[in-house]
Amino acid sequence: MTLAIPHRALVASIAIATATLHSVSAFAGNDPLPSWNEGEAKASIIAFVESVIDPAAPTYVPEAARIAVFDNDGTLWSEQPAYFQALYALDRLKEKAKADPSILTSDTLKAAAAGDMKGAMAGGEKGLLEIVNVSHSGLSVDDFKADAHEWLTTAKHPTTGMTFATMTYQPMNELLRYLRDEGFTTYIVSGGGVDFIRAIAPEAYNIPVHQVVGSEGTTKYVVSDGVPSLMKEGGLSFLDDKVGKPVGIERFIGVRPIFAAGNSDGDYQMLEYVTAGEGPRFGLIVHHTDAEREFAYDREGHIGVLNQALDDAAKEGWLVVDMKKDWATIWTD
Amino acid sequence: MTLAIPHRALVASIAIATATLHSVSAFAGNDPLPSWNEGEAKASIIAFVESVIDPAAPTYVPEAARIAVFDNDGTLWSEQPAYFQALYALDRLKEKAKADPSILTSDTLKAAAAGDMKGAMAGGEKGLLEIVNVSHSGLSVDDFKADAHEWLTTAKHPTTGMTFATMTYQPMNELLRYLRDEGFTTYIVSGGGVDFIRAIAPEAYNIPVHQVVGSEGTTKYVVSDGVPSLMKEGGLSFLDDKVGKPVGIERFIGVRPIFAAGNSDGDYQMLEYVTAGEGPRFGLIVHHTDAEREFAYDREGHIGVLNQALDDAAKEGWLVVDMKKDWATIWTD
Repeated sequence: MTLAIPHRALVASIAIATATLHSVSAFAGNDPLPSWNEGEAKASIIAFVESVIDPAAPTYVPEAARIAVFDNDGTLWSEQPAYFQALYALDRLKEKAKADPSILTSDTLKAAAAGDMKGAMAGGEKGLLEIVNVSHSGLSVDDFKADAHEWLTTAKHPTTGMTFATMTYQPMNELLRYLRDEGFTTYIVSGGGVDFIRAIAPEAYNIPVHQVVGSEGTTKYVVSDGVPSLMKEGGLSFLDDKVGKPVGIERFIGVRPIFAAGNSDGDYQMLEYVTAGEGPRFGLIVHHTDAEREFAYDREGHIGVLNQALDDAAKEGWLVVDMKKDWATIWTD
Repeated sequence: MTLAIPHRALVASIAIATATLHSVSAFAGNDPLPSWNEGEAKASIIAFVESVIDPAAPTYVPEAARIAVFDNDGTLWSEQPAYFQALYALDRLKEKAKADPSILTSDTLKAAAAGDMKGAMAGGEKGLLEIVNVSHSGLSVDDFKADAHEWLTTAKHPTTGMTFATMTYQPMNELLRYLRDEGFTTYIVSGGGVDFIRAIAPEAYNIPVHQVVGSEGTTKYVVSDGVPSLMKEGGLSFLDDKVGKPVGIERFIGVRPIFAAGNSDGDYQMLEYVTAGEGPRFGLIVHHTDAEREFAYDREGHIGVLNQALDDAAKEGWLVVDMKKDWATIWTD
């Protein structure tokens, strides 16, 4: 049987059928963000991505400029009851102090090594930095990364009992993959230490180490018995937080990204810098609203404070993702 | 006509024909390094590359680990009679001093602004840094890059009369392309300022800005009238030279490269660090031996001193490229 259909009508009907199939497929199998509940958050992300990848749209952005930056602690993985790196630092400090108790030169360090969290945290950020400095120095960058990787994949989180490396957010991992599938380059831009994150970023997020920007300790080039290595020394040489994030972005990426995701006021300047650029921009804030499945916190606390950025989100046009409402799943499978 | 050829013999003869075609093609049209004269230098580069890209060879290196690092001044483009960035700094200083003579707060700066090169250079590296600091500060990174790009593509070199952007070496540009064609990622790791090189690297070398590592001035995130930008302030925050090069490599790349090219003792530690790693490694030194076509200098001088690295090259297994003998062409066409 042959139907006589005029050529133009046939082409048009194929086009419609294709378009329909395309929309249908988004709901049935090809959903790029299956762990995101249907709603405004998911729809606005997809609408943004589709607007920048369509070569015919005035909002088109060429691949080289499709740069997306993500905070890590509280944005890609959990940060409670303390930054994972702080928990790692405590474990390392205890170990180091066993071998050489003379490293415990302050009350903060003594409290930390004794497992007295309250005493250790009494020194605030300065105390935390002291713990990190002492626990993270005196070994090569390679040895440090190997040790951090071991810890992240074997030590257990105090409340969930999961290994730390598995406490990444499935919806954010899907977002990273979706963006990369659509020609974006995805970077981590974290206040955390760059070596700590690089130890796990390739397997946790499929992000290569050169796309991880973070805070930096001083490293020194040392040749010992003819073998060169980079040794970690105490001391912070770059703080990739707050106003430091745009600086880190310029230094490591060299172009202004068009997409930024964070979860705290430490990401304010990154969100501001990224979304103030010309053309299509997207700012995203992960709001921790799910005390049952993860943790609930925002304006107050010792970590991940989200206050000014929450106040200004509507004005700035940043999407606030409600973890409880918007995420069907929390942890990466 | 049908020839009765046994299947296995046919396959073998095709394999031989293919192999033959492949070797022949290297000499007839598909030479990856046409501006390199035939000889040991060219042959050893090609042999190295072929050894790491052959999946069947024990020397095979997967693509992700095929990282190559290149010094810039004297390795990818000329550096005489002074670093191009120093010449740019002098031009900028003169301009700035016209608008505001009060910036000339030292004899070095006054001499530099007056075009008294000898006086300006009397302060050595410290004086040069002072000139760079004053001339490169007080504007945004974006404005600086635009200005540097304009200068590099219009100002003329004092002895060749060429624009600076065209004084890149054709043989090195071929090497960069050859490596990239074979799955390498090519980075610049330069003692020069990162913003200055990024202003021209994409068009001069086809290297994207995030693959340029260099010395860094302090930058500050500033929001002015609601518009955020990164402002260049005076002061050096990272010196990517000598022992700084391996540090910069670890910070920006995060894995040890397998190929390094330099031209002076400022590249010694980079060559040492790269070639000390396990598996196949390649170190290359560009030796400036061609006073007629470019410049001839090595062990002595105010710039690009090649002394210790030249002494140790044989022991370390680094290839010393003789510009006069090994390069058929100097400048990029």
